[in-house]
Amino acid sequence: MPGVDLSTEQVFERIDVLEPEIVDALCSLVKIPSVSGDRDAAEAAAGAVAELCTRAGLAAETWPTAGSPAVFAEIKAPAGAPEILLYGHYDVQPAEPLDEWDSPAFAPVVRDGAVYGRGAGDNKGQFLAHIFALRALRETVGIPVGVKLLIEGEEERGSPNLEALVAERSDRLSCDVAVTADGPYHPGGHPLIILGVRGLLYLEVWVQGASRDLHSGSSGGVAPAPARSLARALASLWSSDDRVAVPGFYDRVLAPTDAERRAIARLPLPPGGGSDSATSAASAAQRIMFEPNVNIAGIDCGYTGAGLKTIVPHRASAKIDVRLVADQDPERIFESMRDFLARQGLGVRRLASVPPSHTPLDNRFVTPIGRALQAAWNRPAYIQPRLGGTTPDFVFTRRLGVPSILVPYGPPDMHHHAPNERIELAALRRGVRSSAAICLQLAGTGH
Amino acid sequence: MPGVDLSTEQVFERIDVLEPEIVDALCSLVKIPSVSGDRDAAEAAAGAVAELCTRAGLAAETWPTAGSPAVFAEIKAPAGAPEILLYGHYDVQPAEPLDEWDSPAFAPVVRDGAVYGRGAGDNKGQFLAHIFALRALRETVGIPVGVKLLIEGEEERGSPNLEALVAERSDRLSCDVAVTADGPYHPGGHPLIILGVRGLLYLEVWVQGASRDLHSGSSGGVAPAPARSLARALASLWSSDDRVAVPGFYDRVLAPTDAERRAIARLPLPPGGGSDSATSAASAAQRIMFEPNVNIAGIDCGYTGAGLKTIVPHRASAKIDVRLVADQDPERIFESMRDFLARQGLGVRRLASVPPSHTPLDNRFVTPIGRALQAAWNRPAYIQPRLGGTTPDFVFTRRLGVPSILVPYGPPDMHHHAPNERIELAALRRGVRSSAAICLQLAGTGH
Repeated sequence: MPGVDLSTEQVFERIDVLEPEIVDALCSLVKIPSVSGDRDAAEAAAGAVAELCTRAGLAAETWPTAGSPAVFAEIKAPAGAPEILLYGHYDVQPAEPLDEWDSPAFAPVVRDGAVYGRGAGDNKGQFLAHIFALRALRETVGIPVGVKLLIEGEEERGSPNLEALVAERSDRLSCDVAVTADGPYHPGGHPLIILGVRGLLYLEVWVQGASRDLHSGSSGGVAPAPARSLARALASLWSSDDRVAVPGFYDRVLAPTDAERRAIARLPLPPGGGSDSATSAASAAQRIMFEPNVNIAGIDCGYTGAGLKTIVPHRASAKIDVRLVADQDPERIFESMRDFLARQGLGVRRLASVPPSHTPLDNRFVTPIGRALQAAWNRPAYIQPRLGGTTPDFVFTRRLGVPSILVPYGPPDMHHHAPNERIELAALRRGVRSSAAICLQLAGTGH
Repeated sequence: MPGVDLSTEQVFERIDVLEPEIVDALCSLVKIPSVSGDRDAAEAAAGAVAELCTRAGLAAETWPTAGSPAVFAEIKAPAGAPEILLYGHYDVQPAEPLDEWDSPAFAPVVRDGAVYGRGAGDNKGQFLAHIFALRALRETVGIPVGVKLLIEGEEERGSPNLEALVAERSDRLSCDVAVTADGPYHPGGHPLIILGVRGLLYLEVWVQGASRDLHSGSSGGVAPAPARSLARALASLWSSDDRVAVPGFYDRVLAPTDAERRAIARLPLPPGGGSDSATSAASAAQRIMFEPNVNIAGIDCGYTGAGLKTIVPHRASAKIDVRLVADQDPERIFESMRDFLARQGLGVRRLASVPPSHTPLDNRFVTPIGRALQAAWNRPAYIQPRLGGTTPDFVFTRRLGVPSILVPYGPPDMHHHAPNERIELAALRRGVRSSAAICLQLAGTGH
């Protein structure tokens, strides 16, 4: 493709000029405390995203859903060029524990070459890269592909309304490939091309005892003990070898294909491993990508302040997240877990359910995206068969029926979902370059 | 004892006159948020207690300790009269969960014939009964016994400095009998004479994983899982029949004596029991008094807010309270539990340690105190061999070597250690009458 190198250089130069504006825009977005589920903050964030699209020369639409609105912007494809769906999310994880942040979660600061704040990396900095890449293209060589930009507001809650939105708007969202910038890149600093995600099931479970806390001297050992019941039920989720003990849990777990195994084996070692690190890193990577997992994300019970309080807590609850792999069915796993826990006296409520999803490694978009990342990062990209985390990838692969590719722009130490979340300015710049280079490289893949 | 009835009546009338002042004094005390361990609030509360003693005509002293100060006031015994130590505590339990209070914990209100607020029943209303009883006696027939009033400020933390204080001040604290007003009276509204307490061991246990919370998609199943380790360790504290599984835990548990069993059998049934309630109530009562218990008072782990957060919490901790009976040794039980939990990777810290304590049922103070309670309540008192809760009873029985008797003035539904703590005005009045009648009745028991 003659001319790409020159175009790419021109766009990258424009991105450098835009950098102060990109950082400002990110800080403005991070200031909006759009914790998933907060409707007012979601409206504000959607408005801000639409405004950034407008400033990039894209006509943005705000699409209501049963929950938080999504922002959509479209650029018609030049004749013969493919249509690319660029996906991201403006909602963020809760910021707690607030006292572990070095600077407030929603008061972004630039410090040591990084933007700190909740959502800086997950996902505001990453979808912003798409918007500014489109702007830099538009202001230089033009946008050589059709683009459907879709930024939703409920990803951190398991995208409960995205599937319905995609069904409703399928005519507007039809495309050749979906590209998501989310998650962290390789710990060794290598760009990654990720071809699937684990699914997610999120449960809240609880045990109710008396109607109020009781004095442990007067009632302990005689009154119901929700804390003990919860501890037992949680412990029973695993057998002694840490395998999940819920019946049928592993029934439909598919092993990686040979191609996927080879891709895992080719992934560089994370830095700082020991002598046996090659085997153990590959084994850990394979577990994170191809094995399901049950995790306790929180337990709420009784007194947790300083010193002592002698009570029988009247209630105990926990949050459990389950990562699912192909071909586990969230509905079936939910029923097994609910039955398993309900038999032990627990109440069970489902807060999220996202099926796993993946795209074959040999799809025609991998090679041009690899070239794009090479151009943006100046180092080769590696193929990672799956992300350990969850995105609503299934709406692209199953509902729209297109290949879906994740290209993480976030640094491995971005503290996503944790205090002191950040994105390095260098990573942000590489991200914008990557989105631009992807558009340029995909231009030749045809419709 | 001729004349007692007339004196009693005169004192009771005086108590009726003092009632508005008693309620005011209780509200003033409850306003001071003397949560155990808060040094500033402790100073304020000790000062207020000393001031109330002064207004009752008693010369009060404030005794410093390594923790919060105690208040002491003394009245010399008339010739041949016994010396009675009256014990109480001005510190209170934490007020959390604050949002479950109908009115703020430290803004006392009189509502539906009761004073509401943290400490209203445990123990401010109850030791206040001693002080106003002495004042009513002093203002009418005179105080016919020697009195050592001791109000400490660390009972809710396991009285860590009381034993040393009693050793240091043993000359000032020598007495014939110790009387404590604490805990709730019988659910059927009967006065109780209680002859011992369970001991207390309070532990904080924890598991540390990574240095910060991790993304459960990127790290769950590979990173350490403190929540799972804690759940397992807590569950392992009991076997499937709910017996404590820590080795040696029951080794030195003494069965009740025949006299204690008979006393338990004579206790009235709690109201509202079913057809098998006689047996089950006696069995529950015996368990609460004569069996040790391990209780989870709180668990702190990960995310407990609304909605979902997908993290591997980097730390999990729990508070455990253990009630001990004769002849369990807190030191030995602590070591067993620490070893048991440490083998499972838990950190263990001891926050309190109070040995169990009791007084034989046949001591010479039971009968006159029974007469006093009959006079104050107009119904007969029952003997309850033990309190399920814990007071520092051992400093009286073991360090001072005297009989120690508990007479609860708090209503059974006083919500002690829980939100909406309260003491009914009728219970408060009966309490002041009881303290006065006890002084009058013990006058004849000799020194």
